[in-house]
Amino acid sequence: MSKPFITPDFLLYTETARKLYHEHSENLPIIDYHCHLSPKEIAENKPFESITDLWLSGDHYKWRAMRANGIDEKYITGDASPWEKFQKWAETVPRTFRNPLYHWTHLELSTAFGIETVLNPESAREIFERCNERLRQPDMTPVGLMRHYNVELVCTTDDPVDDLRYHRQIEESDISTKVLPTWRPDNAANIGDPVVYNSYLDRLSEVSGIDIVDYDSLIEALQRRHDFFHAAGCRLADHGLTAFPYCLASDTEIKAIFNSVRSGTRLQPDQSEKLQTAILLELCRMNYRRGWVQQFHFGPMRNVNTRAFRVLGPDTGFDTIGDYRCAFAIASFLNALDQSEQLAKSILYNLNPADNVWVAAMIANFQDGSFPGKMQFGSGWWFNDHISGMQNQMNALSNQGLLSRFIGMLTDSRSFLSYPRHAYFRRILCDMIGHDIERGLIPAQEFPRVAAMVSDISYFNAKNYFKF
Amino acid sequence: MSKPFITPDFLLYTETARKLYHEHSENLPIIDYHCHLSPKEIAENKPFESITDLWLSGDHYKWRAMRANGIDEKYITGDASPWEKFQKWAETVPRTFRNPLYHWTHLELSTAFGIETVLNPESAREIFERCNERLRQPDMTPVGLMRHYNVELVCTTDDPVDDLRYHRQIEESDISTKVLPTWRPDNAANIGDPVVYNSYLDRLSEVSGIDIVDYDSLIEALQRRHDFFHAAGCRLADHGLTAFPYCLASDTEIKAIFNSVRSGTRLQPDQSEKLQTAILLELCRMNYRRGWVQQFHFGPMRNVNTRAFRVLGPDTGFDTIGDYRCAFAIASFLNALDQSEQLAKSILYNLNPADNVWVAAMIANFQDGSFPGKMQFGSGWWFNDHISGMQNQMNALSNQGLLSRFIGMLTDSRSFLSYPRHAYFRRILCDMIGHDIERGLIPAQEFPRVAAMVSDISYFNAKNYFKF
Amino acid sequence: MSKPFITPDFLLYTETARKLYHEHSENLPIIDYHCHLSPKEIAENKPFESITDLWLSGDHYKWRAMRANGIDEKYITGDASPWEKFQKWAETVPRTFRNPLYHWTHLELSTAFGIETVLNPESAREIFERCNERLRQPDMTPVGLMRHYNVELVCTTDDPVDDLRYHRQIEESDISTKVLPTWRPDNAANIGDPVVYNSYLDRLSEVSGIDIVDYDSLIEALQRRHDFFHAAGCRLADHGLTAFPYCLASDTEIKAIFNSVRSGTRLQPDQSEKLQTAILLELCRMNYRRGWVQQFHFGPMRNVNTRAFRVLGPDTGFDTIGDYRCAFAIASFLNALDQSEQLAKSILYNLNPADNVWVAAMIANFQDGSFPGKMQFGSGWWFNDHISGMQNQMNALSNQGLLSRFIGMLTDSRSFLSYPRHAYFRRILCDMIGHDIERGLIPAQEFPRVAAMVSDISYFNAKNYFKF
Repeated sequence: MSKPFITPDFLLYTETARKLYHEHSENLPIIDYHCHLSPKEIAENKPFESITDLWLSGDHYKWRAMRANGIDEKYITGDASPWEKFQKWAETVPRTFRNPLYHWTHLELSTAFGIETVLNPESAREIFERCNERLRQPDMTPVGLMRHYNVELVCTTDDPVDDLRYHRQIEESDISTKVLPTWRPDNAANIGDPVVYNSYLDRLSEVSGIDIVDYDSLIEALQRRHDFFHAAGCRLADHGLTAFPYCLASDTEIKAIFNSVRSGTRLQPDQSEKLQTAILLELCRMNYRRGWVQQFHFGPMRNVNTRAFRVLGPDTGFDTIGDYRCAFAIASFLNALDQSEQLAKSILYNLNPADNVWVAAMIANFQDGSFPGKMQFGSGWWFNDHISGMQNQMNALSNQGLLSRFIGMLTDSRSFLSYPRHAYFRRILCDMIGHDIERGLIPAQEFPRVAAMVSDISYFNAKNYFKF
Repeated sequence: MSKPFITPDFLLYTETARKLYHEHSENLPIIDYHCHLSPKEIAENKPFESITDLWLSGDHYKWRAMRANGIDEKYITGDASPWEKFQKWAETVPRTFRNPLYHWTHLELSTAFGIETVLNPESAREIFERCNERLRQPDMTPVGLMRHYNVELVCTTDDPVDDLRYHRQIEESDISTKVLPTWRPDNAANIGDPVVYNSYLDRLSEVSGIDIVDYDSLIEALQRRHDFFHAAGCRLADHGLTAFPYCLASDTEIKAIFNSVRSGTRLQPDQSEKLQTAILLELCRMNYRRGWVQQFHFGPMRNVNTRAFRVLGPDTGFDTIGDYRCAFAIASFLNALDQSEQLAKSILYNLNPADNVWVAAMIANFQDGSFPGKMQFGSGWWFNDHISGMQNQMNALSNQGLLSRFIGMLTDSRSFLSYPRHAYFRRILCDMIGHDIERGLIPAQEFPRVAAMVSDISYFNAKNYFKF
Repeated sequence: MSKPFITPDFLLYTETARKLYHEHSENLPIIDYHCHLSPKEIAENKPFESITDLWLSGDHYKWRAMRANGIDEKYITGDASPWEKFQKWAETVPRTFRNPLYHWTHLELSTAFGIETVLNPESAREIFERCNERLRQPDMTPVGLMRHYNVELVCTTDDPVDDLRYHRQIEESDISTKVLPTWRPDNAANIGDPVVYNSYLDRLSEVSGIDIVDYDSLIEALQRRHDFFHAAGCRLADHGLTAFPYCLASDTEIKAIFNSVRSGTRLQPDQSEKLQTAILLELCRMNYRRGWVQQFHFGPMRNVNTRAFRVLGPDTGFDTIGDYRCAFAIASFLNALDQSEQLAKSILYNLNPADNVWVAAMIANFQDGSFPGKMQFGSGWWFNDHISGMQNQMNALSNQGLLSRFIGMLTDSRSFLSYPRHAYFRRILCDMIGHDIERGLIPAQEFPRVAAMVSDISYFNAKNYFKF
């Protein structure tokens, strides 16, 4: 029998790297501070129907790979049987050499299912059956998988109108992983379509008990929900942006613009940007007052394939990387908050890796000595969470700032099987540092400090930073 | 005597890489689906006058290097003797260490002339004479070189007004390499100078037999020529763009804009972009209806040195890389075609490598399962066809999509000596894959599949994709 | 005792690299053609008060790292004692693993102080005292350090209104390092604040003896000062830009715009850009007429943190990398000068490394054969003078042009301790070239030429290029 693909020393090419990983990183718990898991699925903790259900029912990364491989949509999001879909995926897997999906797939097979066989058309049937058999065992549930992977805490992604009932239900249960909500108020500033926007505001009115009739009542309603999230344990906001908005206007103008869209008028682009800027600044002030951490994700272009969007809806594999210029807007936005001393701890994530270096430099302008690594350059994300994507992000951070203060990895995932991506990240980190020691770029006599740095980035920095 | 520079294992640093190259890539034929060879030169198949003629009479890469080396224009494009020019080039060669020209030069000397001596001022005279002697042998002609390099097929680059007589002549000959035209209708949308544009339209009227009096007759004339190219075996379009145009307008407005430029008026920039968008969309619909592949090259700034342009004209080494933002335009353009189900197989080539990652992500949004690798991220091109340029392109593609479906290399060249660039590309590819296997990033037990992938990228993917 | 961190072979990983460095680079003098040293400090040549004074009184790189490390401003730019500040820096140092500061710090300790102990909180007191003791020795002065590091020549950075008295004083002294001024006329085109601008023009009027009442007298005043700088030995101009300006206007319009700002009116952005373009073109013509070299630095966003700026002023660590698009402006600007045959030797430095490749390609369009490497792609600068930053710049230059003609490193520094950065650069260069030879990318039989190239880039190219 051939050597397994996923060995204990996978990605670890030096003695130092192996020591760092196995002794100072591997066994630390996981804090997954940014994900898209369903709190309902955690609370209900139902078993999975099949490996197809678990792997292919919601993973747009895999869908994109299958489409690129010429697979008909029937076998991707269509009505083919679980086996047929799995088979098409197994056919695609050996076509993904050098893509992170190839590694993720085998890391998941190895760590969750104990399967060391490489997936390909020949092994597909056996692996399908072994996985499904394993999935019938009682520990193979959302909660069981989180326990299996030593997940201490996850933060889900939640809308201000969400009642957070499942978070309460989880808190009251004996689930060992802590599950906190994240405040993601994007819908409160997505002004593009006035019908959609007003219908959202109606719901927000209802949930908050504040009738949103003007800009001030919008802010009041959001503040109420912000308070509600805080009471539910939320300590983290997430702001998903396309291009970063920054266009100031007077209070009077903002109020007039809001009245205009609230009465159903479609706004001009500059009006939209003004209102978005104003709302985002208000939301950031709320974050600051509560001592939360805020995240800014910018750079995607969403739903660029209209034909697919009409059939499949959002988040189905038709978002992409934009090439917006954002440096001036971001500097101005952070500066506006900093000037009034209302800049919360912040994490900036760019989607276009061509922006890595200036983002890494940008955060340093707002480090104010109040907390180590107050401003964070967020981990390689979405289109960047592969080996070179993570290396590039860490190299940019290392050169422009302090890698030692980095809060590390997040999955950004919708799947309970994505935790090996933390191990993947940690291996890449340890290999990078091990390489540097063996090349004399970091002095070997500082090994204890280097080992502590690796543990910090793997776990302790996030723990100290968020103070959940 | 010293070891030759170009050894059989040049660029192949692992055992696996060597095996992949020598057993699964090296001996496959070449499909050079994008070049700028002259069909006339192929049809006439005249011998070359000298190595100076072959190397220096049209190669703006070499000219740029010589100018940077402080060589007077007299020895570059001027009236110096063949030997003087060669001598100045030989003096420049050791100044090009680390530039791809250094490798190309020695690959060409080795594979076409059997010369393993390194070119420098001391060896110049001997190499000049040996090359010229070799060039007097009967097999050293355009057709002979294509046969020597096992070139199965080339696609030239041709204007809609071209009569393709040389392609017919070649087809009727016993030339073993298939030579097909490529439809490059850029002039039909280059609206900058109304005098130049109208003179082109007059010629197009004449050749097509359609009097171009309005927008509809322009499209009809183009359609006629498109049909003519199809009849001549053309299956490939090439659209060379600066920034990617995308600005929609009503039919009425487009027609009015066209009438304006047809009557000699210089257009405003937004009018130009509207008309260009409309024409390009029409051309893409023609490509779709015929089942052609279409290429989009974007990003260059052309003729940026006016003084040189006035003396030497275009394509003399004064084009450069722009930093346009194109992601939104490209997404919108492809989406417009996709929505009406008129998006042909497409290859996108960016010139600025800072755009690699978003381009690699972009194509995935329009993979629709109809053909494996329907949307292609084109090979490192022009300013990017060097080792790291090709590696970066393949890494971006690997991370964002399926390297396994990549149709591989093209020369984009005007020279019959450029075929070793295919070998150069294949060596780089094999070394990259060999490295991954030896590092455990691809499982060794999948070697047969990996070897097939290498053969696919070297040859079979292009063959299956274009179906010439 | 543990092995020292900074060994003689630091960063040199192959036998060839070591040979290149030790035999062909290490011992060559330093030409630091771009720095921000104070000519007054050189002329007065006072000893340094302490290592804190030398290291921490003006180094915004270190300040940024300390702020990111959560250090209070009191210990950075505040009123803490020299020991307290040093202690906080020593605490930060092991937090900078992988940042260039870690290497620079230990290179400086090793080469200037003979200290091989790694700096960290435990060694801080001993190193503080050893450094201060060493600083009391008579050779540890500005001039002594320049002699120690074999600095043949430095170019300072000076404003047109500067009287250059210290340069004269140095010239008349027996200081062995040549100290020349650099003409940096940015203030003459910084039109943002009319009050600041007019006050500058008043000073320029006074110093030049030309009453600046209109655009023509502005140019005349600048020409007078340009002549004065030339007479003082200046042969180098430096133009610091944000985005590169390029917007042409008629003479009449330029004159009217100037009158407007001279009378105190704040200009519109397009007016500013027109006036800036006109002034910059005039300044470049002066450079050409005098046979100077001109430098263009573009891309920073300055003083982005208003709160810090109000307290600490400029150059305190709150500048950052912008993401401007400049390719079209730069091409047009250089072309405008080239068309009238007034383009001086020029060095282009981009701050955003995402621009490296197009900048490397851009310079080639204006190489005219008049001097080898007439147009230069400037060395990795400011946010880019670390290992990968320098490698990326040299790789881009190698692929797009002639590395062999590169004029190499500059410190851009305000510190007399920064010269080891030249050694750092040279080691990186030698390692890169050594690697290429050992990998067969450059033929070993050309070693003498390669060694000469390394010497050229280390020293001789700059010497021949500037002809100071």
